[in-house]
Amino acid sequence: MTQLNLNLFVYPAGHHEAAWRFRGAEPHRVLDITYYQELARRAEAATFDAVFFADGPSLPDNVRYASRFRLEPFTWLSAIAAATSHIGLIATASTTYLEPYNLARLFASLDHLSRGRAGWNIVTTGAPQAAQNFGLDEHPAHGSRYARADEFVEVVTALWDSWEDDALVIDQEAGIFADDTKIHPIDHSGERLRVRGPLNTPRIPQGRPVYVQAGSSEDGKGFAARHAEAIFTAHQTLANARDFYADVKSRVKAAGRDPGLVKVLPGISPFIGSTEAEALALREEFNELTQPEYSLHQLRHLLGIDLTGYDLDGPVPREELPTHEQRGYGSRFQVVVDIIDREQPTIRQLLHHLAGARGHWVTAGTPEQIADRMQEWFEGGAADGFNVMPPYLNGGFDVFADEVVPILRRRGLFRKEYDGSTLRSHYGLPRPASQYASRAPDGQAPTGT
Amino acid sequence: MTQLNLNLFVYPAGHHEAAWRFRGAEPHRVLDITYYQELARRAEAATFDAVFFADGPSLPDNVRYASRFRLEPFTWLSAIAAATSHIGLIATASTTYLEPYNLARLFASLDHLSRGRAGWNIVTTGAPQAAQNFGLDEHPAHGSRYARADEFVEVVTALWDSWEDDALVIDQEAGIFADDTKIHPIDHSGERLRVRGPLNTPRIPQGRPVYVQAGSSEDGKGFAARHAEAIFTAHQTLANARDFYADVKSRVKAAGRDPGLVKVLPGISPFIGSTEAEALALREEFNELTQPEYSLHQLRHLLGIDLTGYDLDGPVPREELPTHEQRGYGSRFQVVVDIIDREQPTIRQLLHHLAGARGHWVTAGTPEQIADRMQEWFEGGAADGFNVMPPYLNGGFDVFADEVVPILRRRGLFRKEYDGSTLRSHYGLPRPASQYASRAPDGQAPTGT
Repeated sequence: MTQLNLNLFVYPAGHHEAAWRFRGAEPHRVLDITYYQELARRAEAATFDAVFFADGPSLPDNVRYASRFRLEPFTWLSAIAAATSHIGLIATASTTYLEPYNLARLFASLDHLSRGRAGWNIVTTGAPQAAQNFGLDEHPAHGSRYARADEFVEVVTALWDSWEDDALVIDQEAGIFADDTKIHPIDHSGERLRVRGPLNTPRIPQGRPVYVQAGSSEDGKGFAARHAEAIFTAHQTLANARDFYADVKSRVKAAGRDPGLVKVLPGISPFIGSTEAEALALREEFNELTQPEYSLHQLRHLLGIDLTGYDLDGPVPREELPTHEQRGYGSRFQVVVDIIDREQPTIRQLLHHLAGARGHWVTAGTPEQIADRMQEWFEGGAADGFNVMPPYLNGGFDVFADEVVPILRRRGLFRKEYDGSTLRSHYGLPRPASQYASRAPDGQAPTGT
Repeated sequence: MTQLNLNLFVYPAGHHEAAWRFRGAEPHRVLDITYYQELARRAEAATFDAVFFADGPSLPDNVRYASRFRLEPFTWLSAIAAATSHIGLIATASTTYLEPYNLARLFASLDHLSRGRAGWNIVTTGAPQAAQNFGLDEHPAHGSRYARADEFVEVVTALWDSWEDDALVIDQEAGIFADDTKIHPIDHSGERLRVRGPLNTPRIPQGRPVYVQAGSSEDGKGFAARHAEAIFTAHQTLANARDFYADVKSRVKAAGRDPGLVKVLPGISPFIGSTEAEALALREEFNELTQPEYSLHQLRHLLGIDLTGYDLDGPVPREELPTHEQRGYGSRFQVVVDIIDREQPTIRQLLHHLAGARGHWVTAGTPEQIADRMQEWFEGGAADGFNVMPPYLNGGFDVFADEVVPILRRRGLFRKEYDGSTLRSHYGLPRPASQYASRAPDGQAPTGT
């Protein structure tokens, strides 16, 4: 029976914007690697599929009010790999602001040192201020970024394939370290990238890292259909999540790929209490810790309009919002507009709604209720699993691991132990063969499956 | 009393080109992170200053005959950091083929997660084939690479300074996570680079990673005089090492810096035996494992001439070598020419000479003799310490740690325990203040020293 896939989305103090102010938080440990290693070990004890790190090559605005600095994922996950043995390690990395040869090396190394646990969350970088850290006058346009992303994936895939699986010989007696007829230059010369190769490291345990994607724009969904093996997404309602799920799976099929091999994983940020009232009170405690100046700034990023000066307890000025066309792209904008139309919140209520997880699904309840809701999405064709985004860390993950995971296990919805020790095995994905294996001069069939 | 600084230069199976074929080698572990973690732990037990990883963004030629693939240093050293607590972690990284913002993040993160143990071996990348992995028609010329390197160091230094030490506030009560008046855009707009900043991570434990440099060309020495805090270099004789030492220290002084704060660390690759005859026999055993096709190819890289087809037991055709002017740059060429002129070797003898450590000092003797020679260089004004390059790993390092280190300690030449836990403290280097600290609006003096 198919089971849920669960990732722990790690964010310095937790996903709620006021997490670092919560009484149970350890904000002085946000740069302490042992804090993250402990967290990953607890996620591994709960047999989670992976830990996931977001990233971007610039400083977000408003670090004054929240722990919005960035942990560099490759270094951080390599140190976490050393403290764990089974859990997957998903690093976000940009196709816009990294060179493909460098990115291919970093993932190859992470996969080698973790013995097959690397995943790549492929992003084109949304924050326009990144451009100025890389000598560009302007952040490249959305379509242009995705065009480069497509070519980039082609290049790094070829690099990861450039050593065939059996290229490493290590015959001490004969003096042959590697069979160089099985190491291939990729000779890529495309519209945007030229890369000769081969990669300077032997093929990795997983063949290629697991390809993850998180953008839900039209370009993003097309890209996901072509490349993704797991898709992170943000939805507030079962209905919306189900629509997205059906849409993306049909796009995968149309692209000639097996929809069963593409996991759709919405975010969920659960406030958990021993009663529903306690869970709601916990959520309210977090709301009290938010700072409107920060929250309004975040809202401006999502909506493209600054509501500073409006009565926080008055209605959202619906008529002043930009249209979807004016916002250009970005599915998160639509998520927020849907909330406004569905719930008719005051500005303060909207700010509180979004403070939890930046537009992801925030839900409060007992462990049983949280498990019920996850099961409903899973069985209702809305999710293959979830990206779990605890509002606060570490405690907010512990309560999920200790209280919700056992219920999911009892219901047969989640594994009790790992079947394998690679991220591909957790996700039930095959190990890809090298594209060069079939070109061997002796005409042998490709190796791997 | 000043003592030696000792780094362990890690190379997959060892520095001798035939190391992987040696009976004691574990070549099947060259991609196994635990092999390197164990090695680093042993170097830490021997109170070494640092482990050092070379790097380059391309596949070296001739991987057929030797373990010449590349370990990506940031990921590898992050996993090593997690298995150690005191030893420094020096990563080679290229100013030619990385973006400064990305490099600054990787080192910042390595320094955070290791609590102050990161060092940056600043290289401009010598291997011309790297260019083709980065969309360039040609590898940039030597002078152009160094011009970029100078500007690059200026940029990343500013990025590492961009958060003042006290910018991170974490006042839960007041809701102030960071004091954004102490986080500075760097607004660099130079001839070759434009970077706005600030960095997206708080200031690192060491302020900046330790700056290490390894090129000994004229450009390289000038660069070292301006920036380096440690210099790796290759010399075959005490006289040459002493000349280099005096030259570089005087250049440091001329650049207005304190020569005592720049450590000169030649490479040493020791074959160690309980008698000198045993050590020489061990070296001969390695020579027997070399493969002339490989060795000749390596020699062609160093000399710019292919001696394939010549009688290996005949003389080196001295008159056919290019001149220093024709070779253009690269101090290693001169090292090889000096060997030829000094020792008049046959081609085979020259190949064996270079097989040990690619032009670095290879020496064979008892532990006492090795210690004597190191002491002679140290006290003779030729070295502040050494980059130890065991011909084979792991065993070749163990014998150094177990047999030579105790002698150095008994003579008062090497520490018995660590005084601190940062690389700066091992090297006796001050922690640099942020260049932005003095610009504080309240006119306070710079923090840090």
